[in-house]
Amino acid sequence: MSRMKLLTRHSRLMCVGIGTVIFGTGVLHRQRSVHVQAKTIAIPRKNVDFSKYMARPVTAVEKLEGTPNDMKSRMEIFIMEIQKEICDALEDLEVDIKFKVDRWERKTGGGGITCILEDGEVFERAGVNISVVHGTLPVKTAQQMRARGRPLDASKPLPFFAAGVSSVIHPRNPMIPTLHFNYRYFEVQEEGKSVWWFGGGTDLTPYYLDKEDVKHFHGTLKKACDKHDPSYYGNFKKWCDDYFVVKHRGERRGVGGIFFDDVDEPDQDSVFGFIKDCAKSVLPCYLPIIYKHKDEDYGFQEREWQLLRRGRYVEFNLVYDRGTKFGLLTPNARIESILMSLPKTARWQYMHEPEPGSPEAELMEVLKNPKDWV
Amino acid sequence: MSRMKLLTRHSRLMCVGIGTVIFGTGVLHRQRSVHVQAKTIAIPRKNVDFSKYMARPVTAVEKLEGTPNDMKSRMEIFIMEIQKEICDALEDLEVDIKFKVDRWERKTGGGGITCILEDGEVFERAGVNISVVHGTLPVKTAQQMRARGRPLDASKPLPFFAAGVSSVIHPRNPMIPTLHFNYRYFEVQEEGKSVWWFGGGTDLTPYYLDKEDVKHFHGTLKKACDKHDPSYYGNFKKWCDDYFVVKHRGERRGVGGIFFDDVDEPDQDSVFGFIKDCAKSVLPCYLPIIYKHKDEDYGFQEREWQLLRRGRYVEFNLVYDRGTKFGLLTPNARIESILMSLPKTARWQYMHEPEPGSPEAELMEVLKNPKDWV
Repeated sequence: MSRMKLLTRHSRLMCVGIGTVIFGTGVLHRQRSVHVQAKTIAIPRKNVDFSKYMARPVTAVEKLEGTPNDMKSRMEIFIMEIQKEICDALEDLEVDIKFKVDRWERKTGGGGITCILEDGEVFERAGVNISVVHGTLPVKTAQQMRARGRPLDASKPLPFFAAGVSSVIHPRNPMIPTLHFNYRYFEVQEEGKSVWWFGGGTDLTPYYLDKEDVKHFHGTLKKACDKHDPSYYGNFKKWCDDYFVVKHRGERRGVGGIFFDDVDEPDQDSVFGFIKDCAKSVLPCYLPIIYKHKDEDYGFQEREWQLLRRGRYVEFNLVYDRGTKFGLLTPNARIESILMSLPKTARWQYMHEPEPGSPEAELMEVLKNPKDWV
Repeated sequence: MSRMKLLTRHSRLMCVGIGTVIFGTGVLHRQRSVHVQAKTIAIPRKNVDFSKYMARPVTAVEKLEGTPNDMKSRMEIFIMEIQKEICDALEDLEVDIKFKVDRWERKTGGGGITCILEDGEVFERAGVNISVVHGTLPVKTAQQMRARGRPLDASKPLPFFAAGVSSVIHPRNPMIPTLHFNYRYFEVQEEGKSVWWFGGGTDLTPYYLDKEDVKHFHGTLKKACDKHDPSYYGNFKKWCDDYFVVKHRGERRGVGGIFFDDVDEPDQDSVFGFIKDCAKSVLPCYLPIIYKHKDEDYGFQEREWQLLRRGRYVEFNLVYDRGTKFGLLTPNARIESILMSLPKTARWQYMHEPEPGSPEAELMEVLKNPKDWV
């Protein structure tokens, strides 16, 4: 199937996703793990139908309905939509296997919904997690936020709220890249007023370099960014290249994408609009690449190379990733939801060096020297 | 073969190791990688024959011979002996495969010898690394050392020397545990005088619990400790249990062993004697366990469990291990020698829980609640 046909096919999927599955009457035949089907709530048609998501919301429905204009409610509903949209699109690619859904609660406030699909035909491991947590920000965290330039008074614990969606998708076929995205909203109460910001990003980790894929991926992200600010794509692409670095190896984790944090300008509605466009661009970024490569042949050598690169993915996530490190150090954090980002299988080999001129060496070249793709 | 026969067999191996291979005329038929055979140096019989080790020493032979009473020379020669002894004993278990030997230099002073065997019949990945480095201690490191109670003046960079042997052995058969050991000597020059200490440890990471193995392992370590101080084994066993903790999982990496740092009493010769006994106990601790289990049957389920536990090994090493973290943050560190400790293959599975009453659950019980074994 050609790229254009794929994009068209994909655009249709997106329309279906937004038009029918999320706000519509999507079928409810999926396998559920512990926290099975959210009970259907009788609410006026104009309201959100919470029964359509992967599980019932973390926050009480009454509260979400009672505060429809509060960004906390809007973000929680939005990340549930995104979670549902991604899970549906990935399940469409599988034959028998469905996402396992775990709705969990956090002792000290809030909780999350972890959706994970393992050992599928197309996806070796794909996780889509949302979390909606609140409580008191530890002084140390507030200080770290100050260190990043955010003016929080770190002298005493502050009430906070955080809601985000985060996903890592590891396909089985080494010709399909791994994808990661994360979008989040943060709010801290300081001396009676709300300090808020958004952060997030989407990035791609191929095992073999298909330049057309990377151009399509970055081009799609640029389009989402350009709708909001002409400086966003360039700045956030660089931020991404600078962030996803396996420092001790002197190489990037992948071919980048966008990454940003602490965005609170020009106003809450605008930044939320930007975040929504970014998150909604995940499937247009990624699905055409999956469909293009999912039936491609590969052999032992390609699988071995993929597993070695997944070793590097593990190195980045456990040694450098801020979110992972923060999560692992947080008492009572839901470890399995945090480490959902790790691949199913990873491998290490002493002094492995791809042969010069090989496709593996071609990938390494762009991981060592990030390029402009659009 | 019964345990006693194994131990006897092993004692013979040890005698051969110490009597013939290390100080004797051991054959030189091994495969070498880049830095092939150390050239034979004509030295008087009473001197050390440096041609017998895995590669030529990091420090110039003339310097080692010129300062035979300096602990720096004694430790370097000792860790070369240990490296040779361990590599020989492991190679004896393999049919065709030999250790790859890389002698490397560190830009800012010193270097090391990395020996690694991958994809053997018995050993999936076994690394034995020595490093002998010197230079200027970064202020940050000196401060960290102060934080551990070592009174270093961290206001200015200090000249240091460090020599150590470190090894991780990951057998293929899930019935054989993984072994790790590390013994090191540290010296810092402060205001014209030497501040020195030793550290190290040996610990075992089984995939299936064989209580007899663990008793033998701890018993052998206790014997080495008891020769020097009756309080050593108890204290260092606890230190080990407290150190090798995958904190975010609330479980130990394995069944422990001994672990210590900053030992500088009663005097240099005594502590060196202790270190030597510990390092020489590695083979008596481990070889009988390898011989006992190496031909045991196992299937898919046991291999899967081993790979999941190796995922936890990766989590510990990348997230918590002080040596690994320090190494990865050190500019120009030899990453492949540091990450030699990682297994060849590791695996993750969402919410994996062993069945109650299963051998896997039996292991988890002692990883969650460390026991006294002797």
